[in-house]
Amino acid sequence: MSFQFKKLAIPEVILIEPEVFKDDRGFFMETYKLSDFKKTGIDVDFVQICHSRSSKNILRGLHYQLNPNAQGKLVRCIKGDVFDVAVDIREGSPTFGKWVAEILSEDNNKMLYIPEGFAHGFVVLSDWADMLYNMTNEYAPESARGIAWDDAGLAISWPVSNPVLSESDQNSPALEKIDNTF
Amino acid sequence: MSFQFKKLAIPEVILIEPEVFKDDRGFFMETYKLSDFKKTGIDVDFVQICHSRSSKNILRGLHYQLNPNAQGKLVRCIKGDVFDVAVDIREGSPTFGKWVAEILSEDNNKMLYIPEGFAHGFVVLSDWADMLYNMTNEYAPESARGIAWDDAGLAISWPVSNPVLSESDQNSPALEKIDNTF
Ligand SMILES: Cc1cn([C@H]2C[C@H](O)[C@@H](COP(=O)(O)OP(=O)(O)O[C@H]3O[C@@H](C)[C@H](O)[C@@H](O)[C@H]3O)O2)c(=O)[nH]c1=O
Ligand SMILES: Cc1cn([C@H]2C[C@H](O)[C@@H](COP(=O)(O)OP(=O)(O)O[C@H]3O[C@@H](C)[C@H](O)[C@@H](O)[C@H]3O)O2)c(=O)[nH]c1=O
Repeated sequence: MSFQFKKLAIPEVILIEPEVFKDDRGFFMETYKLSDFKKTGIDVDFVQICHSRSSKNILRGLHYQLNPNAQGKLVRCIKGDVFDVAVDIREGSPTFGKWVAEILSEDNNKMLYIPEGFAHGFVVLSDWADMLYNMTNEYAPESARGIAWDDAGLAISWPVSNPVLSESDQNSPALEKIDNTF
Repeated sequence: MSFQFKKLAIPEVILIEPEVFKDDRGFFMETYKLSDFKKTGIDVDFVQICHSRSSKNILRGLHYQLNPNAQGKLVRCIKGDVFDVAVDIREGSPTFGKWVAEILSEDNNKMLYIPEGFAHGFVVLSDWADMLYNMTNEYAPESARGIAWDDAGLAISWPVSNPVLSESDQNSPALEKIDNTF
């Protein structure tokens, strides 16, 4: 198996470390393999792949899509480093409103698998950072929703105190106030 | 549709250009979306994703896997630039032994979809280059095969005359001499 899988404090969120094969030419690694992920319970099909670039202190999030468009996400940082956060927003979940975070970087090769039912966001710690996302459902703008990054109820310990946000992200409600109707 | 699709001289090999959405934060782009690819006839499931890094003049290829493990590949360069080649090795194909090539780079965002039945290789033109591959079948070392990069019958116009190869790639036969038995 070319991967190490580790359940985080919210056990549905999985930290994944690929094995890197180095040789005289450079390196080669698998970053996803259906058979290995399936064995670990990540049994999904990825139907969309995205790539974003953001400069230092940019915070994107916290984002999710309403059902039936909820997205499971395999996220990875291929340039720079980010503080990456997953928030459990599954109604009735024992860890509802709890979050987990990891530093993802081009050096540590760590990835997070964040299932459907979570909100996701990250802030950029390096001069700029490139992120790759594999998603289990396609983008559906009408079902895209946000939660305030600085929601006091969540109390996420962001390592950046004055992040830069898109206009839409500046206007997101607290988790308590989200409106999941169309 | 967030993609431009273009058939190359071998029409089963498709050049893909994603739409890049730029804003104050950086950019966002989709690099794969099942629904759009399906409409263009690329109706496959990707079961493995790989990432390789190689220094200047490294040539990886020409590689393929025997059936039932043949791999369709969506390839993309996320750092540096490469000369990327697909060779038709489908028996009975009107373009058997023909090749197509494209420069893929972090700047042009171009991707190639190379279906099953092709051999694939690339040479690095920049100081180093990072490549991402999405594959329709998993790695199966016992069915991995190579063809000589400098096979005179193929006459690929590589832009590098003295590329650096792995030991295994130095010993690959010409297309005429390949042995597709296990
Ligand atoms: C999310 C997304 C955006 N876009 C376009 C719409 C806009 O023109 C542009 C930027 O969109 P935004 O929603 O502002 O991007 P964003 O980077 O703020 O949104 C992303 O944030 C991450 C934290 C989440 O994990 C992602 O799922 C996504 O929500 O890209 C797509 O074409 N496809 C997509 O999947
Ligand atoms: C191809 C591959 C290699 N490996 C391991 C085996 C070796 O330890 C190390 C390097 O393997 P190599 O076959 O020498 O890598 P390579 O980079 O020379 O091979 C690649 O060349 C590209 C042109 C093709 O498109 C790819 O499909 C693949 O064949 O990585 C995997 O774990 N999974 C894989 O899918």
